[in-house]
Amino acid sequence: MKEKVVLAYSGGLDTTAIIPWLKENFDYEVICCCIDCGQGEELDGLEERAKLSGASKLYIENVIDDFCDNYVMPCVKAGSVYENKYLLGTAMARPTIAAKLVEVARKEGATAICHGATGKGNDQIRFELGIKALAPDLKIIAPWRMTDVWTMESREDEIAYCKEHGIDLPFDASHSYSRDRNLWHISHEGLELEDPAVEPNYDDLLVLGVSPEKAPDEGEYITLSFEAGVPTAINGVKKKVSEIITDLNAIGGKHGVGIIDIVENRVVGMKSRGVYETPGGTILMEAHDQLEELVLDRDTYAVKKDLGNKFAQVVYEGKWFTPLREAIQAFVDVTQKYVTGEVKLKVYKGNIIKAGTTSDYSLYSESLASFTTGELYDHHDAEGFINLFGLSLKVRALKKQELDSKK
Amino acid sequence: MKEKVVLAYSGGLDTTAIIPWLKENFDYEVICCCIDCGQGEELDGLEERAKLSGASKLYIENVIDDFCDNYVMPCVKAGSVYENKYLLGTAMARPTIAAKLVEVARKEGATAICHGATGKGNDQIRFELGIKALAPDLKIIAPWRMTDVWTMESREDEIAYCKEHGIDLPFDASHSYSRDRNLWHISHEGLELEDPAVEPNYDDLLVLGVSPEKAPDEGEYITLSFEAGVPTAINGVKKKVSEIITDLNAIGGKHGVGIIDIVENRVVGMKSRGVYETPGGTILMEAHDQLEELVLDRDTYAVKKDLGNKFAQVVYEGKWFTPLREAIQAFVDVTQKYVTGEVKLKVYKGNIIKAGTTSDYSLYSESLASFTTGELYDHHDAEGFINLFGLSLKVRALKKQELDSKK
Amino acid sequence: MKEKVVLAYSGGLDTTAIIPWLKENFDYEVICCCIDCGQGEELDGLEERAKLSGASKLYIENVIDDFCDNYVMPCVKAGSVYENKYLLGTAMARPTIAAKLVEVARKEGATAICHGATGKGNDQIRFELGIKALAPDLKIIAPWRMTDVWTMESREDEIAYCKEHGIDLPFDASHSYSRDRNLWHISHEGLELEDPAVEPNYDDLLVLGVSPEKAPDEGEYITLSFEAGVPTAINGVKKKVSEIITDLNAIGGKHGVGIIDIVENRVVGMKSRGVYETPGGTILMEAHDQLEELVLDRDTYAVKKDLGNKFAQVVYEGKWFTPLREAIQAFVDVTQKYVTGEVKLKVYKGNIIKAGTTSDYSLYSESLASFTTGELYDHHDAEGFINLFGLSLKVRALKKQELDSKK
Amino acid sequence: MKEKVVLAYSGGLDTTAIIPWLKENFDYEVICCCIDCGQGEELDGLEERAKLSGASKLYIENVIDDFCDNYVMPCVKAGSVYENKYLLGTAMARPTIAAKLVEVARKEGATAICHGATGKGNDQIRFELGIKALAPDLKIIAPWRMTDVWTMESREDEIAYCKEHGIDLPFDASHSYSRDRNLWHISHEGLELEDPAVEPNYDDLLVLGVSPEKAPDEGEYITLSFEAGVPTAINGVKKKVSEIITDLNAIGGKHGVGIIDIVENRVVGMKSRGVYETPGGTILMEAHDQLEELVLDRDTYAVKKDLGNKFAQVVYEGKWFTPLREAIQAFVDVTQKYVTGEVKLKVYKGNIIKAGTTSDYSLYSESLASFTTGELYDHHDAEGFINLFGLSLKVRALKKQELDSKK
Repeated sequence: MKEKVVLAYSGGLDTTAIIPWLKENFDYEVICCCIDCGQGEELDGLEERAKLSGASKLYIENVIDDFCDNYVMPCVKAGSVYENKYLLGTAMARPTIAAKLVEVARKEGATAICHGATGKGNDQIRFELGIKALAPDLKIIAPWRMTDVWTMESREDEIAYCKEHGIDLPFDASHSYSRDRNLWHISHEGLELEDPAVEPNYDDLLVLGVSPEKAPDEGEYITLSFEAGVPTAINGVKKKVSEIITDLNAIGGKHGVGIIDIVENRVVGMKSRGVYETPGGTILMEAHDQLEELVLDRDTYAVKKDLGNKFAQVVYEGKWFTPLREAIQAFVDVTQKYVTGEVKLKVYKGNIIKAGTTSDYSLYSESLASFTTGELYDHHDAEGFINLFGLSLKVRALKKQELDSKK
Repeated sequence: MKEKVVLAYSGGLDTTAIIPWLKENFDYEVICCCIDCGQGEELDGLEERAKLSGASKLYIENVIDDFCDNYVMPCVKAGSVYENKYLLGTAMARPTIAAKLVEVARKEGATAICHGATGKGNDQIRFELGIKALAPDLKIIAPWRMTDVWTMESREDEIAYCKEHGIDLPFDASHSYSRDRNLWHISHEGLELEDPAVEPNYDDLLVLGVSPEKAPDEGEYITLSFEAGVPTAINGVKKKVSEIITDLNAIGGKHGVGIIDIVENRVVGMKSRGVYETPGGTILMEAHDQLEELVLDRDTYAVKKDLGNKFAQVVYEGKWFTPLREAIQAFVDVTQKYVTGEVKLKVYKGNIIKAGTTSDYSLYSESLASFTTGELYDHHDAEGFINLFGLSLKVRALKKQELDSKK
Repeated sequence: MKEKVVLAYSGGLDTTAIIPWLKENFDYEVICCCIDCGQGEELDGLEERAKLSGASKLYIENVIDDFCDNYVMPCVKAGSVYENKYLLGTAMARPTIAAKLVEVARKEGATAICHGATGKGNDQIRFELGIKALAPDLKIIAPWRMTDVWTMESREDEIAYCKEHGIDLPFDASHSYSRDRNLWHISHEGLELEDPAVEPNYDDLLVLGVSPEKAPDEGEYITLSFEAGVPTAINGVKKKVSEIITDLNAIGGKHGVGIIDIVENRVVGMKSRGVYETPGGTILMEAHDQLEELVLDRDTYAVKKDLGNKFAQVVYEGKWFTPLREAIQAFVDVTQKYVTGEVKLKVYKGNIIKAGTTSDYSLYSESLASFTTGELYDHHDAEGFINLFGLSLKVRALKKQELDSKK
Repeated sequence: MKEKVVLAYSGGLDTTAIIPWLKENFDYEVICCCIDCGQGEELDGLEERAKLSGASKLYIENVIDDFCDNYVMPCVKAGSVYENKYLLGTAMARPTIAAKLVEVARKEGATAICHGATGKGNDQIRFELGIKALAPDLKIIAPWRMTDVWTMESREDEIAYCKEHGIDLPFDASHSYSRDRNLWHISHEGLELEDPAVEPNYDDLLVLGVSPEKAPDEGEYITLSFEAGVPTAINGVKKKVSEIITDLNAIGGKHGVGIIDIVENRVVGMKSRGVYETPGGTILMEAHDQLEELVLDRDTYAVKKDLGNKFAQVVYEGKWFTPLREAIQAFVDVTQKYVTGEVKLKVYKGNIIKAGTTSDYSLYSESLASFTTGELYDHHDAEGFINLFGLSLKVRALKKQELDSKK
């Protein structure tokens, strides 16, 4: 009996060409696995396509809720943003997919997993670290890195290779941006974006929405409800997280929100330039932060910020299935206990404008903040506070005076 | 001879009422000192006003360039933002002013410095820590905290007190927002802002510009040139930093950029809500970050980000004249050595949109980032990298499998 | 009916004098509360003594296990050491005590809590922050800070005051070190220690053990067993944590282990110099770290180290009952899941010498570490790893060469 | 003309065998370079040996002072310790050596550099990152990783290979610990140390000194003088840093100080176990820290501690020639401005016991620290301080009471 390999399959040209290649070069039985994180692609006819291409079986796995609840929400609660800008869309999807690939591999008794990520990007790392952590015994095959065996260098080569192997499908040979999409975001790389000196051509580029300039002249209010850091309702209607993100994508996209143009540092040591659209995610994270402003105390807010940055780095580097990710997540979960309340926002031509936040657990006290004196605050206390807060500073200055006077 | 006190004087009602109060309660000779950080107020007639109110002398000190070059720029280079949002406008001005007050006090042989900050805010701390660090022997007088001696509780009380002491000036008794302005920003507190559930009334509130909704329908391009982290030209015209900020304020204000609505944690332990306008500063910091994306390596960028947060905290807390501030600044200065280049941006209705960045020191390499293989990058290296990068993860997983199999 | 105050009572001169003072100045009914964290003092006759001094009731509360399990162990698991040296003995006891005082106050319907900590130390902060967090409505009385009402300035004054109020107890008026002791440690301050230029007189000073020079010439082996970060047995005998600490104190004290001489930064802004004896604690923390070396991966170890330092700061500052302390503790608990194994140590004249560590969850792999090649490690991988690990460095160097060549 | 390769040469079997191998396999002209960081080996006769082995030239470079002043001292000033224990001895020497190798390569017009580090360790990374950063155009040859060309697997193989190529030298085929030595330390790996469950055999192992148990029964006092963080005199005698380290090594080694047994996490992803002797370094770092306790303020001390850990990581990972290392060093240098004074210590059987520290810049104030009230400290201030320091905590507790009462 042949050994089985599970192939992360999208139905596109790249992963289709891998099917005959795996059979020809390794004599594997190929199990295709298409994992739906909300990429919004047509899945009808995918089974036929996979089988026509030589696969013995196709799994279609809808993991959208798993993705939103168990990968996206921990990052939202942590406020994790990589290098100030990137909301980790692809980075959160990769471990979701890796876990599912391993599950299918175990079910099928496969001995290897194959993915179509390139040898220059972060995704190969994220897939492979996920697989290593969950199934260290499985072999990993990354055709695009195997330049001695994988000899195709262009879409034309791949189409030719498919035809040679009897796969005659209507693939498009034209070159476009390199994109990755899921429910949280879409990323764009390549073409004019490869030169950071060039302004992106947003009219051609954008998929999930429009640029601020093309957005309606009228803004739109949104109210989000949170319980323990998790969004539970939008405009008063209770929905699950994936539905809220879907709704926010529509609204945010329409109003030109969440378009980011960044030069980022990949794990493999190079800089790359990409444009990300995260319309719903940007609104969700902003709203969450707005609520935290009211509910978290200063010390917790400050340490959580540093750890959120660390979390972003861990996730970006593909280290999802690690004790460090679990430990930071436990920290964050404790801080979210009281992140419950309502956040109102207005979106308008790329802007997210605060329009009022309320929480039963708000630590904001109007009587404290105002200029009048209340029972909680004695102005005389401030003097004592400042004297001790500045004591070491003063001691240092006095010592300096003393030394200077001796000179 | 009477002892002298130096009073931080604005010409407004609060600090005017302090003049007779200082004379009456402490028998001081009062030296007024009006320090101009770019608050954009009328300074003509101020000397008369001070003397009419009983001051023996008025200093008017223009410190705008000192403020921009020595206080603002270190924060911009550090990328310092307090609690994700606040660009430290007031926090940077206070030590600038404290240093000048000390300078005047020394020149005059004064034994005390008096300021009009309230007992609930951060500014009392920033003034006093500045003074303690530079002149630990000077007495500090903070009338608003001395509720047993300072008995005025409202603007009406102050006007009455002034009249009693022969100061008959046309003060306005109406209540407005509590504001602090300098070249970098203006802050607004009070009135409806005291309730975080209420959306600010931007039409009444804004001073430096308009809201995104009132901004022009046409965006505007700006090009900023930097040398070693410092802006040196705008749209190709060489200018000093204060002039560039002035220009950016005009453009940013016009296009609704840099309006922030925040609930922040004060040093004295309470939350407060404020709206800040920082039109030019927001553009400048964004542009600076855009250039750093190209020029700084990943490790430096990450550590600098953490230290920038720390710097923000130190500055927010009034600890400017400390070894820690100096040490972080030295760190930052080293990182800025190659932050030289041109940044193009478009401002449009509250948005700052990247429009291309170039630098001779860019670490971005198009041949590296693209999908083709160049001489610098061998795809096979990625496999070795991933194997070692994920080695501890795999060892852990194997160990777990081994233990599980024993159960 | 009189209002009740709960007094943290030790039976010593200071807290005894407070009893009549509270009655005389505030007309309180005084409830004494002696909380035993393992200070090793005689508690017999304490009730008589309290009542003779005017208290209406004495609670004696043994909280040793609560202290060890719920306050000490979280710090051990976090590896928390303040400013590199101080093992937080007093800092961990204060919230334990504060919680108990609040519990008694609630039970008695008291409206105030009184403690005898001085106005210059950390303990006033730790007591009061604990009380504020658990019972914000209770009044706090700190006699030593109330220098207008509390007029006693020396032990002689206190003895005289007691006598005047009919309390004739054999107090010792002689001056000694100021000490704080519990099961975890004893601290010493005062006398010759007040000058950091002076070497401590260890023969007079030490209470829990001897100096290394007085320790036996023969060392002693100890084996500690841990489960999920908690010590469960010593030399193979299962014991509870408090018993293990007691045993380790005896052994460590005998062998001169855990004596620390430090100049530390107090929260109130000054430096102070103290000597701490923590014989058992020092061994326990060393053993725990030794096990973590084997079990934690590199990333987790590094982040945990930073958070452990932060935890130490939080605890030192008296912020035990805060979300930040809870959140860091949750982080730490996740990391401890596999900190299970055996640690062997030899103590000898102040030294703790490793003598072998084992754990089922050890991530150390002899075949990996040795110089031979195994199946887990391919030497060729190292080349790929280094090439990508150093890629940005090389790009930077090439860019520099290119720019230099243009000059 | 043949291309030249510069070989890092020790005169030992490994690097000797590389000479004919380089000539045979690559047809290089081999330039040997022996770089003396204080490894204490015999250098007489080395030139003959190198030439006899086929090298065309031998450079002997004494870099001891460069190593001490420019690599060791920055780490001492930063207080850098890797994973709590390792004083970075080898990690600091590698960039020193790399810089010298590049210098010689440039002088000779060589096109490659060859080193004898193994494919499993950290040193290959440190050498190669150093070379990449300083001379990105040079080829790097690491024979031990080139298992297809380098076929020798044991000392016996190497001896045989040498003989075949006419090199008949008296090499020792016996197996011992794997060691690395320089002026700062010696490391030991291998043999029984490969099992962390086994106690090291210190009598066989130690080279620079004795174990605490073998140390004299009489301790010894040392006084170190520092200026701006750098040691300038020992026991009152002015010496350069390398001489002070040499003296401290003699004293520390004699008294059993600075022996560390650690399981550390290598950069390449595995744990390894080693014993390090750093007698002088341990004393020097302890003394330096002792002085900092007196001179640095609390905030600076805390941030410096975190950055010192980061610095340790950067150095451990071989990233010496990077902007991040330079930037942290600039931070540290600012903090060292006042680290000037005298430190007295006693070493005794493995212990370093403080015996008094003095500095003109000491921030310790006896009058502040003592229990009496001085003019600098008003006990009433403490109340105000605590009230504001604990304000958010109290607000939170009141809010909780309010919510609980509503239930």
